[in-house]
Amino acid sequence: MTLKVSDIGEKELVKYIISNSKDITPDDTAVTPLNGSNLISTCDMLIQSRHFPQNMSYFDMGFKAVTVNVSDLAAMGAEPLGFLLAIAMPKELKLDDFKEILDGVLKACDYYEIPLIGGDTNEASEIIITGTALGLADKPLMKDTYQNGDLIAITGDIGLAALGFNFDSFDNIYVKQALEPKARIKEGLILKDFATSATDITDGLASELYEIKKDGLGFMIHEKLLNVSDEYKELASKLNLDYLDLILHVGEDFELLFTIKKDDLEKLPIDCKVIGEVNDSDVIELTLENGFVERIKNKGYEHYVSE
Amino acid sequence: MTLKVSDIGEKELVKYIISNSKDITPDDTAVTPLNGSNLISTCDMLIQSRHFPQNMSYFDMGFKAVTVNVSDLAAMGAEPLGFLLAIAMPKELKLDDFKEILDGVLKACDYYEIPLIGGDTNEASEIIITGTALGLADKPLMKDTYQNGDLIAITGDIGLAALGFNFDSFDNIYVKQALEPKARIKEGLILKDFATSATDITDGLASELYEIKKDGLGFMIHEKLLNVSDEYKELASKLNLDYLDLILHVGEDFELLFTIKKDDLEKLPIDCKVIGEVNDSDVIELTLENGFVERIKNKGYEHYVSE
Repeated sequence: MTLKVSDIGEKELVKYIISNSKDITPDDTAVTPLNGSNLISTCDMLIQSRHFPQNMSYFDMGFKAVTVNVSDLAAMGAEPLGFLLAIAMPKELKLDDFKEILDGVLKACDYYEIPLIGGDTNEASEIIITGTALGLADKPLMKDTYQNGDLIAITGDIGLAALGFNFDSFDNIYVKQALEPKARIKEGLILKDFATSATDITDGLASELYEIKKDGLGFMIHEKLLNVSDEYKELASKLNLDYLDLILHVGEDFELLFTIKKDDLEKLPIDCKVIGEVNDSDVIELTLENGFVERIKNKGYEHYVSE
Repeated sequence: MTLKVSDIGEKELVKYIISNSKDITPDDTAVTPLNGSNLISTCDMLIQSRHFPQNMSYFDMGFKAVTVNVSDLAAMGAEPLGFLLAIAMPKELKLDDFKEILDGVLKACDYYEIPLIGGDTNEASEIIITGTALGLADKPLMKDTYQNGDLIAITGDIGLAALGFNFDSFDNIYVKQALEPKARIKEGLILKDFATSATDITDGLASELYEIKKDGLGFMIHEKLLNVSDEYKELASKLNLDYLDLILHVGEDFELLFTIKKDDLEKLPIDCKVIGEVNDSDVIELTLENGFVERIKNKGYEHYVSE
């Protein structure tokens, strides 16, 4: 049988790329030592039919293209240096729509205080935006440098966007989070002096935990610490969706997932939510609200559009 | 009438982006001052149906994705620092074909001595490769810093790829140049100490000359200095193509176009071909082999595939 790229999946393809280059840092971004600091670089491609919900405005598409890349800088504790935009569009796209996309990119660059330093356009059958974010980090915050006993925390609520993708109209905080996510660049810059490791949650909490897991160590997450509201549970239930599935396996909130020593947590000058701890179980588990413990599945985020 | 993006064209769209960001250097790449040097960054997206001839191998697609980006570094006289790869592919692409593309990328990175520092994959209806090339330049070689009286030169023959796109089989130097172009990274590093300006020829000589033209100054190109071979003229004629049109208006050779003072030309330790000079005519002209002078049209490269 001839294998197709879809037979092994995107994560394995990326692993194949990494295993074939001795120069790739297997982390949220590339890290290149440079004059006593580190150049942080990352490049993400967003494709209209896969990454933008149908009810997303052109402005929000542009904004999100910056957010997903800046979020990787945030996960490294990097100071933003510049953003490069490469955009492909159908010939028939209205000029005003293009201007709206660019406006979203520019507003996002202002918001994250990262200058737009380059731009290129192209033609394709749908909108494709590739962003490259560049930054500097004296102490890059890697994703797997935690130790047994560290606490696991997140910079904000997760699962909001996951729920929001299921509504068509823009009428609640969940849709707002789905259409207008923000990267945690300021928090990343603070975390670099306190956290023992960090990554951003793009593909869902479960997927990121498996991504950062090291042999011999494991994680225990506590449902009650996730602090899921009754409203959230009810909305999910009305949509016939499992709320824990939304929270664990979807993502797109662009919150940071980090680990921290207990003693450093008190000193940390930003809001965060401790949701569990690193242990030596070698597995990733969830303590449910009813006290039962179950294994968290390694189910990655397969995007919110059906394929 | 509602304007579409195709009504104004890619060059104008890029100008619109540049005019809306105060932080974009309107040159071959972005230039970001960094610790006494300059970070050089550039990002180019290649789309299968637009940028890869039908007879191009997967290996050559990967190689070319690196070449087009490294060529921009070369045009700035930059030392390569790292290359980031973002690739989207149809689900049905054979895994072996993906591996061949990656092999092309890796071989190109070896060839240009630029480490592959990051990789990401995605799904799309056709192959789309976005490369980001990063480099450092103490003295970035800008494209419009020439003066009246400077000589105009190129690092090698142009028009070869333009002719090669018209053959299906891989049987001559023209097809080789079309399918396996190489960027002039080493030449760029030497030129930075001799040339007064430089850019790379991707969209054709004419297009690049109009791109670098400054108010009040002009260029005179001499056909006899282009040194077009009889074989080239005959092949073009057999294909019912105008050889000067191929040479002036197609591009994709990735040679460097540069200007240099007469005195510095003798000291320049690389092969090159002087093709004309900067003057104060405010127009871009060609002296034909028969002695007649004609205006070179500002006709950009609209890719070799019919649209």
